[in-house]
Amino acid sequence: MDGNYIEYMIENGAFDGLLGVRVRAIEAGRITLELPFREDLLGSRERRALHGGALATLINTAGSMAVWSTLDIRTQHVATIDLRLDFLRPGRAEAVIAEASVVRVGRHVGVADVRLHHPCDPTTPVALGRGSFAIRSSGDRRAATD
Amino acid sequence: MDGNYIEYMIENGAFDGLLGVRVRAIEAGRITLELPFREDLLGSRERRALHGGALATLINTAGSMAVWSTLDIRTQHVATIDLRLDFLRPGRAEAVIAEASVVRVGRHVGVADVRLHHPCDPTTPVALGRGSFAIRSSGDRRAATD
Amino acid sequence: MDGNYIEYMIENGAFDGLLGVRVRAIEAGRITLELPFREDLLGSRERRALHGGALATLINTAGSMAVWSTLDIRTQHVATIDLRLDFLRPGRAEAVIAEASVVRVGRHVGVADVRLHHPCDPTTPVALGRGSFAIRSSGDRRAATD
Amino acid sequence: MDGNYIEYMIENGAFDGLLGVRVRAIEAGRITLELPFREDLLGSRERRALHGGALATLINTAGSMAVWSTLDIRTQHVATIDLRLDFLRPGRAEAVIAEASVVRVGRHVGVADVRLHHPCDPTTPVALGRGSFAIRSSGDRRAATD
Repeated sequence: MDGNYIEYMIENGAFDGLLGVRVRAIEAGRITLELPFREDLLGSRERRALHGGALATLINTAGSMAVWSTLDIRTQHVATIDLRLDFLRPGRAEAVIAEASVVRVGRHVGVADVRLHHPCDPTTPVALGRGSFAIRSSGDRRAATD
Repeated sequence: MDGNYIEYMIENGAFDGLLGVRVRAIEAGRITLELPFREDLLGSRERRALHGGALATLINTAGSMAVWSTLDIRTQHVATIDLRLDFLRPGRAEAVIAEASVVRVGRHVGVADVRLHHPCDPTTPVALGRGSFAIRSSGDRRAATD
Repeated sequence: MDGNYIEYMIENGAFDGLLGVRVRAIEAGRITLELPFREDLLGSRERRALHGGALATLINTAGSMAVWSTLDIRTQHVATIDLRLDFLRPGRAEAVIAEASVVRVGRHVGVADVRLHHPCDPTTPVALGRGSFAIRSSGDRRAATD
Repeated sequence: MDGNYIEYMIENGAFDGLLGVRVRAIEAGRITLELPFREDLLGSRERRALHGGALATLINTAGSMAVWSTLDIRTQHVATIDLRLDFLRPGRAEAVIAEASVVRVGRHVGVADVRLHHPCDPTTPVALGRGSFAIRSSGDRRAATD
């Protein structure tokens, strides 16, 4: 597991970089990300709740990277098959932490769980995510769920 | 149904505006959105596939707005309870169209389906989304799934 | 595609047989099942609504068989990776029809959609299902998502 | 919380009774169920794996009852809005335990997590479930997600 390479890929990723996703911790099968707050992550300026799409992005990146961290990252990569998101509370106008952990990794499919919370209130989940991720050899550019 | 107001809310929304989401058509229970392509919507610059989070954002906005378009938008709003996303193919480095339609709207919960495709290939879905959305009176700032 | 063999496998399956699932139509990528009504399919005898687990069973069998019907059924089989179920209305004390169709079949994963309705009211869906199914060579007895 | 009444409702429920679901423990927000093994719970007699629909039934009952156990069971009941099921491993020809716990209960919607395992191997999950459940006043016979 090369945590530095995964960290580099996330923080220099185009869309993750646009949002400002940061890697806080990484080990095989577990990753912690942070999305620092910015006004343009809000869904509605009036209600000042984070857009579900910003939370979904954090969940997708955290889940897929947690699975990837268990693989040979030089020769294998992951693609999201499907993602399930439960929004338990409005995301406040604050930073968000995502903690992802692998539930199971098989030959072709991995499953990961993700939990989002605000740094000031670690015991109250804001959203939960669970996803199935396809495991493929790098260079294989076929369709997402092949 | 005030389509102009919904269009205004999306195109001037903070996060939808950051991504550049545009409204193409709207009627009660149906909405069509477009996400024009930009380099910073890619997940990986090497593989040149759109980030799943950008597609998730489009699905969340389209589904919730389709439900909202059936309500009294002056006194009611919607909040995403949960969202399910199936990524069928890698999103290419092109614009994406989201077509959302309401499946059912009850008193407290609405369900909507969303289908994503590229404009050049309307019959090939890139991703599918389905979500449950809470229906609430405006001004009610309680938790997402209350 | 050997529809007779798939029909035999469902109607003589242990749990599908316990519930009384019947095959109504089958072609490559599409299958229609019927669950005739019986009192012991109800969740609650007082409210007389079908148990969600009976509907889930129908969705799981219909979705997996729709994917299987596109494969070489002598050498390949399918295993459910994950399933998403939306219960739109209470299932009445009547028969239920399940119509399943394949959304996409790749090398290792297939996706199918399922729609449930009562025979007397075909335009009103009772529940919707969507699932991801692993495609494997027969004889491979590894874990579900391997 | 009247655990005896919930236990009675499950064990005397029509479909839960058909499968043989038993209550092992119950407290406010948490419930443990057991599905003793029987041959007719198998999906395929050849591969001797439990049918996903039998596992889905256990998940639906456990999740909805965990939410119900936090309510006034004389005047409120629950209806499943949607359910998400991840099948991590084939269910063996053995009993299955379901442990359900409430994630959040709001005014109109509750969310619960469910984990299935075999009694002989409690640390290895067989399947995971998560669902959103509508909370309603008893006597309200409207549609599932109203």
